[in-house]
This record gives sequence, structure tokens and C-alpha cells, in this order.
Amino acid sequence: MGYIVKRVAVLGATGSIGRQTLEVIDALPGHFSVIGLAGGRNTALLAEQIEKFQPRFVFHQETKTPPPTTAEYEFLSMEDIARHPEIDLVVVATSGKWGLRPTLAAVQAGKQVALANKESLVMAGELITQEAKRNGAQIRPVDSEHSAIWQCLEGESSKPSKIILTASGGPFRHYSLAELAKVTPEQALQHPSWRMGNKVTIDSATLMNKGLEVIEARWLFDMHFDNIKVLIHPQSIVHSMVEFADGSVKAQLGKPDMRLPIQYALSYPERLANPHLPQLDWADIKELNFEPPDFDSFPCLKIAIEAGKKRGTYPAALCGADEIAVQQFLAGKIKFTAIPELVERTLDEHKAISHPDLEEIMAADDWAREKVMQLAAGDKS
Amino acid sequence: MGYIVKRVAVLGATGSIGRQTLEVIDALPGHFSVIGLAGGRNTALLAEQIEKFQPRFVFHQETKTPPPTTAEYEFLSMEDIARHPEIDLVVVATSGKWGLRPTLAAVQAGKQVALANKESLVMAGELITQEAKRNGAQIRPVDSEHSAIWQCLEGESSKPSKIILTASGGPFRHYSLAELAKVTPEQALQHPSWRMGNKVTIDSATLMNKGLEVIEARWLFDMHFDNIKVLIHPQSIVHSMVEFADGSVKAQLGKPDMRLPIQYALSYPERLANPHLPQLDWADIKELNFEPPDFDSFPCLKIAIEAGKKRGTYPAALCGADEIAVQQFLAGKIKFTAIPELVERTLDEHKAISHPDLEEIMAADDWAREKVMQLAAGDKS
Repeated sequence: MGYIVKRVAVLGATGSIGRQTLEVIDALPGHFSVIGLAGGRNTALLAEQIEKFQPRFVFHQETKTPPPTTAEYEFLSMEDIARHPEIDLVVVATSGKWGLRPTLAAVQAGKQVALANKESLVMAGELITQEAKRNGAQIRPVDSEHSAIWQCLEGESSKPSKIILTASGGPFRHYSLAELAKVTPEQALQHPSWRMGNKVTIDSATLMNKGLEVIEARWLFDMHFDNIKVLIHPQSIVHSMVEFADGSVKAQLGKPDMRLPIQYALSYPERLANPHLPQLDWADIKELNFEPPDFDSFPCLKIAIEAGKKRGTYPAALCGADEIAVQQFLAGKIKFTAIPELVERTLDEHKAISHPDLEEIMAADDWAREKVMQLAAGDKS
Repeated sequence: MGYIVKRVAVLGATGSIGRQTLEVIDALPGHFSVIGLAGGRNTALLAEQIEKFQPRFVFHQETKTPPPTTAEYEFLSMEDIARHPEIDLVVVATSGKWGLRPTLAAVQAGKQVALANKESLVMAGELITQEAKRNGAQIRPVDSEHSAIWQCLEGESSKPSKIILTASGGPFRHYSLAELAKVTPEQALQHPSWRMGNKVTIDSATLMNKGLEVIEARWLFDMHFDNIKVLIHPQSIVHSMVEFADGSVKAQLGKPDMRLPIQYALSYPERLANPHLPQLDWADIKELNFEPPDFDSFPCLKIAIEAGKKRGTYPAALCGADEIAVQQFLAGKIKFTAIPELVERTLDEHKAISHPDLEEIMAADDWAREKVMQLAAGDKS
């Protein structure tokens, strides 16, 4: 890069991944300089982060006005921060579809993009990977699963024959459909191994999250869907695996802690010692378990993969529909098992566009959100 | 390289690793050409291999004369084959101390050396790695554990903070010392997961094999002994692991089949599809288990590591003493638990030489063999 200190923008700085990114940067003095910060609803936290990191560029999604701090900075849009020539690496940790525009801006500007926003690649994988290639941008995954695959592929001259995404299976992995129908939001928000936001936690419980990750993996690693497998691994120690033509399998393991994949995306290709990062203790690990996913009880997995295979605006409609269905479940308005039902009915009615541009992708997402609301309201009346 | 077809010499062609090497080469037509073959006692098999692969250079350890075949070849010593300018890669699969001279000849000639002979690095690790460095030779491990570590380190710019060698633990891993004292050669020759020669199978049961592998790892990967750990993993699916400064762990997995590490050492950095190599089937793998090794019941592990730490001719004396102790056990002359006792007593009496040359290493091995015989005879009288 030519810079001893890498100049970083953190978009979504006040969310879970954003906060952990700043924790990592703080623990590695002299390696990174926070040049841009964009935050969401938590104005007080954003103001605190600005005071501490003294960024040159700030965006505040909630008010669209600068939060009150004593620091001096320029107020820019997320896209303008993402493409700013003084930024080397952009961490896109904004949630949902709000990540798409800054991700696209960053890849079009040829940046290193540490991508924690799932929707960017699920909704617009074709567009974003094409633009990244054209502009020499590097997309570095921040999801623990995709980071694991990336780490296992590093230095390999051959493409893998298979990618094996591991999944904790969520808290209900041995539930019957009848038991799943009775699951409450409170139960669903208890994830066995990872601390995450509410939307991702519910998506983990339905396995929708894993389905979205399959679509991401398809774009990140240019793999055929048939060669991307999902394996339930309740301990969340093996973060994913790759298999090669010679039958060799490589796996990446670690304690379930998002700071490790965040740090790797920042420090790549180097690995930096960080005393705050936990290490695996093999005296504690007696066994690692694996089982195939239950596609019947967790239909979201198949629904997502099917939407991914159909391409076009299907994955965007999938994301929009799922977000509203999860909101409805969290609000106590629909059953846990209605999430896949509503998403599937929405996709069945979707009139897809092939090779969509960003506006068409956003429109499909909007359409699906409204459609789920209609379907949910219709079911109730 | 500059050669489309890699020109290979297989030393120890009639042994287990040698035969499997030729199987791999046979399964990958157009990639490798067998230019040299050296075989041991099995004259009929060597003659068959010569007929099939039509090598230009042959050595026959047993008779020191050419076996009767219709093929035309030049009869050379193993060292002359190993250093021959028409050879790109030398597979050293000769067993025991007979691997040292050809390994040294190959590294001094700057070859790619696929090293299956444990004794080369255990007995002469300092000498051989120095000569490899000086002459631009590349030592490619063939042991499944070291191959796993090599594969996990490929493409990594940072040295690992820790190497974790897995061990099946052998058939007696939960035996008490009293139970171990009663173990018969027949019981000890039943290895739970790997098919190997008798010496290695007994060394696996005593954990001496793992101790020798710790010493090999020290030289192959230039690691401090304190950062090389041993972990019992009875299924032999995870072949070894590495841990980095950031807490990330990489593991290489596969079915227990020596043809995979053999092929990787031949095809590196490429991975070649080979329909004969088995693939992991995750539908079969319900769990992977791990436990710390029992240093008290299996003292060979500690004895070997101590000899490795003391360097000089200690590891050579270790190898010589162990080989004779294992022979005595297999001949029914000593108890299973007498193997570590005899080796330890031999090392206690060893007058070591620092930074030994090859002759001093060989002399230490000879001395230890005689010493074990004396000690074993003394115990009986």
C-alpha cells in the first residue's frame, strides 16, 4: 500500500461489528488510522467515537447532521466517505440494504473493502463483484464463515472443489415443526454461541442466515451452488472448511469472536498479535460435533439457495421479505414458522428482472417488503 | 522446473510409502516420469516396478546387483541417483538410517525432496536443513502431520505461534502402566486408523513416533520445542493444526490415507484430481474427539522431546536405541513398557557430540544399538 498506517473508514460504527472494529483498531496502535466514521441511531456513542478517533470525515445516518463534539471534521455522505481518495480500506458494517450504495461506491473506487454487510453480496452480488473486478477492488469478508474460507484458500493456486459452510444450527436445531410453531421471540433471541444483533439472531434460528451466506459464498469465491455445502456444527469452533481436488480439506478454527475475522480483514495478509483476542484452549475442547442440516424443519435454507440460483432480483426480494417477516415475528404478530411461509409466498409472486442495476435491486426489495405486509395482514383478517 | 513432466526418483520403492508413491504417479498420467528407482529386500517387486516404469537409474539395496529384468538401466548408488542432474524430485522413502545419506545428497544437489524418512530430520535435522538452505533445496514433508502443517502454512506471511501435532494415541491410549506391561506384539501391531510398517506401528503405540515427529517439526518449520504441542485425536481425521498470533487456527483434514500427503509433495503447489484418493464424507463424521496426551503412561513422548532439545547426537542415539528396543519387543524378548526404559537408560549413558557430522551421527546410532542390546541382555541374566 505504501502507507505504514492504513487509513480506514468504518461505516456502521455504532453497530455491533462497527464497535468491535474500533476495539480491534484501538488494540493495535500504530497500524490503523480512523479517517472516516458513519454511525446510525446511537448519536451519543457516535459522538464519543468521534472524540476518541478524531476522524476527518463523518456521516450520521439518523439526523443527517453532525453530532455535537469538539472535534473538527467534514460531513460527507457514506458513499463519499467510501470513495474518498484518502481512505485505503472501507469497513462496511452498516446493516441491511443501507450497505449496498457505500459498498458499490467503495468497490468502484478500487478500495479494499472489509465487508460485514450481508445484503451487499446477497442482493447485488453480480453487480458488486463485477465492479470490484473492473476497478481492482478487493472484497475482504468479515463474516466468520467467509473469513474462514478466505483464510483456507490463501496461497492455494487451485480453486476448491467444495466449500463447507458450518452453522451452529441455532437454538432449535432438534425441534419438530410443531415445536417450532410455538417458539417465542424471547427464545429465538438466545443464540447458543454468538452475540449478534436481533435480526441476525433470528436469521440464525431459521437458518435463513446460512442460506444468505451460501449466496454470499457463491459470489465471493465464484463457486457453483452445488459445490457449496452446509454442515451443522453446534460448537461454532470450526468456522468453515474448503475441500480440494485431491481430497484435502482445510478448516479454520477459533473461539466464536467476531474480532478475529474483523482483524484479519484489516491486517491481511499479515497476522497481528492482539492480546484481547481469545485463543482456543484444547484442554477445554473434548469434541467437535457435526450433523447435516434439517431442510424440512428449516425451509429458509432451501428457499434462500433457490432464490440465489434463480439470480436476478430474486435474492433482493428474499432479503426484503425476510427482514419484514422477522420484524413481524419479533413484534409478536406472526409465528416463527410463518417466516419461511411468508418469504416463500412473496418469492412465488415476484416478477424478477435479470442482471438488475442498483435501482432495480432496491425496487425489488421495496416491493417484497410491501408484499409481506399485505400477506401477513391478509392472513390475519 | 521448466519441465512439463516432473522427473522423479523413488528411493525405497518397494516399501509401503514407495509403493503408494508409484500408485499415485500411475494414477496421474502425464505429470511425472519415474527416472530412478531404489528398492530393498523385495527383489521380485522391484523387478516388476522396473518393467513397468522403465527407470533410467536403479539401485537394489539387498543384492547390490541389478535385478533380472528386460529393461535397460544404469545401476547407481542411492546417493548418485539422489543427486543426478536429470532428476527434479527425490522421494526418500527408505526406512531408518538408510535414508540419511541419500537425503543429504539430494539436498546438497538442490533437489525438491519429498521426505518420508523420519530419521533424516530426527537424527540429522541441523545438518540437513542447513545444507538444504545453502543449496536451495526444498524439503517437502510426506508424513501426514507435517504435510498438514505445510498445507496450513502455505500462503501465510507470518510464522505460526504454535504447531499442534495430532496423534491417534495408538491402540492403548487409555491403558494403565500395569496394563501396558502385558501388551503383546500382536496387540500392538493393530493400529486403529493407519496402515503402516511394523516399526512405525509400535512407535505409534508407544507415542515414540509422535516424539520423533515433534523433532522433525522443529527442523522443518524452525519452531521452538515449547511451541510444538501434541494433541490426541483418535479418529485421525484432523492431521495437524497451526495457530497464529491473532488466535486463528488452521487445520488440514482428510481420510487417513498416505497417498494424499505423498501426492501433495509430488504435485505442490498444484492440487491434482485423483479419483483413487478418498474424500471425507461428512455424513459419516458425527464427532471429532481431542484429549491431551498421557505423558506418564507413554514416557517415550517426553524422552524423545528431551533428546530433541539436547540436540547434538542425542536424537541419533534415540533413534538407534528405539529401533533395537522395538525389535526386541517384537521378538518377544522384552515387555512393551521396557521400550522407554531401555531407550532412556541408553540416552542417560550417551556421551553426546555437538553439531555432529554425518559420520558422528551414524556412530551415535551404532553405539546406541549396541548399548540397548547390552542393557537388554543384562536385564535378562
